[in-house]
Amino acid sequence: MRTEIATLGEFGLIDHLTEGIQPKNESTRYGIGDDAAVLSYPADKEVLVTTDLLLEGVHFDLTYVPLKHLGYKAAVVNFSDIYAMNGTPKQITVSLGLSKRFCVEDMEELYAGIRLACEAYNVDIVGGDTCSSYTGLTISITCIGEGEKGKTVYRNGAKETDLICVSGDLGAAYMGLQLLEREKAVLKGTDKDVQPDFAGKEYLLERQLKPEARKDIIERLHKVGVQPTAMMDISDGLSSELMHICSQSKVGCRVYEEHIPIDYQTAVMAEEFNMNLTTCALNGGEDYELLFTVPIADHEKVADMEGVKLIGHITKPELGCALITRDGQEFELKAQGWNPLKNGGNTTEPAE
Amino acid sequence: MRTEIATLGEFGLIDHLTEGIQPKNESTRYGIGDDAAVLSYPADKEVLVTTDLLLEGVHFDLTYVPLKHLGYKAAVVNFSDIYAMNGTPKQITVSLGLSKRFCVEDMEELYAGIRLACEAYNVDIVGGDTCSSYTGLTISITCIGEGEKGKTVYRNGAKETDLICVSGDLGAAYMGLQLLEREKAVLKGTDKDVQPDFAGKEYLLERQLKPEARKDIIERLHKVGVQPTAMMDISDGLSSELMHICSQSKVGCRVYEEHIPIDYQTAVMAEEFNMNLTTCALNGGEDYELLFTVPIADHEKVADMEGVKLIGHITKPELGCALITRDGQEFELKAQGWNPLKNGGNTTEPAE
Repeated sequence: MRTEIATLGEFGLIDHLTEGIQPKNESTRYGIGDDAAVLSYPADKEVLVTTDLLLEGVHFDLTYVPLKHLGYKAAVVNFSDIYAMNGTPKQITVSLGLSKRFCVEDMEELYAGIRLACEAYNVDIVGGDTCSSYTGLTISITCIGEGEKGKTVYRNGAKETDLICVSGDLGAAYMGLQLLEREKAVLKGTDKDVQPDFAGKEYLLERQLKPEARKDIIERLHKVGVQPTAMMDISDGLSSELMHICSQSKVGCRVYEEHIPIDYQTAVMAEEFNMNLTTCALNGGEDYELLFTVPIADHEKVADMEGVKLIGHITKPELGCALITRDGQEFELKAQGWNPLKNGGNTTEPAE
Repeated sequence: MRTEIATLGEFGLIDHLTEGIQPKNESTRYGIGDDAAVLSYPADKEVLVTTDLLLEGVHFDLTYVPLKHLGYKAAVVNFSDIYAMNGTPKQITVSLGLSKRFCVEDMEELYAGIRLACEAYNVDIVGGDTCSSYTGLTISITCIGEGEKGKTVYRNGAKETDLICVSGDLGAAYMGLQLLEREKAVLKGTDKDVQPDFAGKEYLLERQLKPEARKDIIERLHKVGVQPTAMMDISDGLSSELMHICSQSKVGCRVYEEHIPIDYQTAVMAEEFNMNLTTCALNGGEDYELLFTVPIADHEKVADMEGVKLIGHITKPELGCALITRDGQEFELKAQGWNPLKNGGNTTEPAE
């Protein structure tokens, strides 16, 4: 079944995709259908705004990413940025650029993923914009969230002796990407019906294809009354993000290799690919876990917290940023994190 | 002079482009440099959000659009959407996707245009995101504005007997586009140093390349105490926008051909191109003028207003939407407005 987008037109397509969307949040006064969305936030809230531009061939490869997953992930990575400010995502706008390759059914899939993410995180879609593109799929999502006034957590508040915490585990999304890229290369030119065997590697694929934002961690921190001094989400790799926090907070850090949380499947895959496991966890990217610092007085509260690991501490700036290996050696941390402008992105699809 | 973007990297480029940006608005608490921007609006304000995605080859053609103008226009069209809600633009975020064709100096030009627009309209740049693209230039801008609570003007408030008003004049931006397209075709294959002669057509080019948002009209309406019942900005053409207002307000309208404001240069160009002038003014698009309705009691206030023309009135829905020609005939209005999904955009650059 393939319905050409031209049969609906721009406005018809938006109407079709956004049909039945009902605002759930009190701060959403008017959603799709006018020159702008209208929001209303009480005076004790701060309004948080983040935006992400995703381009086919650079940020995603549709040969192995299902459109529904792509929609889900595109929304969730924006929610993650709002949680990383200690806020709650409330609204998103979605702009799409589509080439003729895409039909109405494709956009239904993509939107189904976006809507699923919005339901799961209680976020309203308040704006939609669709236009034609000559070059694949472009997705631009802006997310608006709220935070309690005075409770917003920035990257620049880490203090000497603060503890460094990370949620979940690292490197799995990167390993999932390697796995998908390998299968893509293997399957090139072979029978399209061959299904790759991902048994035992489901976690890696899920981390790459359907990441979640750590709403639960923010809630747990609130519950025990811990206010992080600095926080960000890990999208470019632990090393890169740690260096952002340290440079913006004007401090140094010590991180212990043995404490970096890594899943068993990630370790098995690194072995299979003959990659250094710690390097993968430090520089892999797309983890969407939270990296945060807390005062040392909160040690017990975070040490016992489900899904949170203490990986090191903040130091004086003169000491720099270093990794302490299992055998006690000190290495300077380097942000070799995923830099899409340096290496042309994380996929290998030249299209220009 | 050409500096490759890779020499700065993603973060370096953003730092470079946004250097020296200081927030001017009280509602901007924290701009570029964290996971999200932090805004704070008082409780008597509504927060307005609009977004626009611009793709090279679809929305702009760099063979005749200078990057600085493109940046200016990309920002201003978003401001226009906020004014069209009876609001004031306050913040924007800017996401860019760049292919290797672009260098640091190109991005300086683009950003110079965006920053110029932000200075002219007193708007803060609070977020920037840059990534590589395989396919030309992608610009995604989100604008946040504020409106007085209860004073926001939607498209759905027009009432029977309301007067229909439009600011400025129509069709000039479309004629400017035709002119640029013609010169591009003429110059194809000729000496690149040949400079086209645009003497006497400056206004058309300015309307196409450097449109302004009608902040002044909003201020004039406030000053005389006129609150429009419905309003939107004209981006897809008067016909299309009138039909949006009428269908969302569940009313009809009568518009008089003789009252549609058209500049002398637009008329001359239409003659030269052998185009129907009224059709150009009705369906041209990209005017970024304001279309609004006011109660008939405000007749005198708007009739005398500089830069505003009365072009018709709102009717019962049963009467439909019609244009009354100079010779008194009635034609049903049709939205043949610029639909980028139907005709593949307003330029002719196939790139896929």
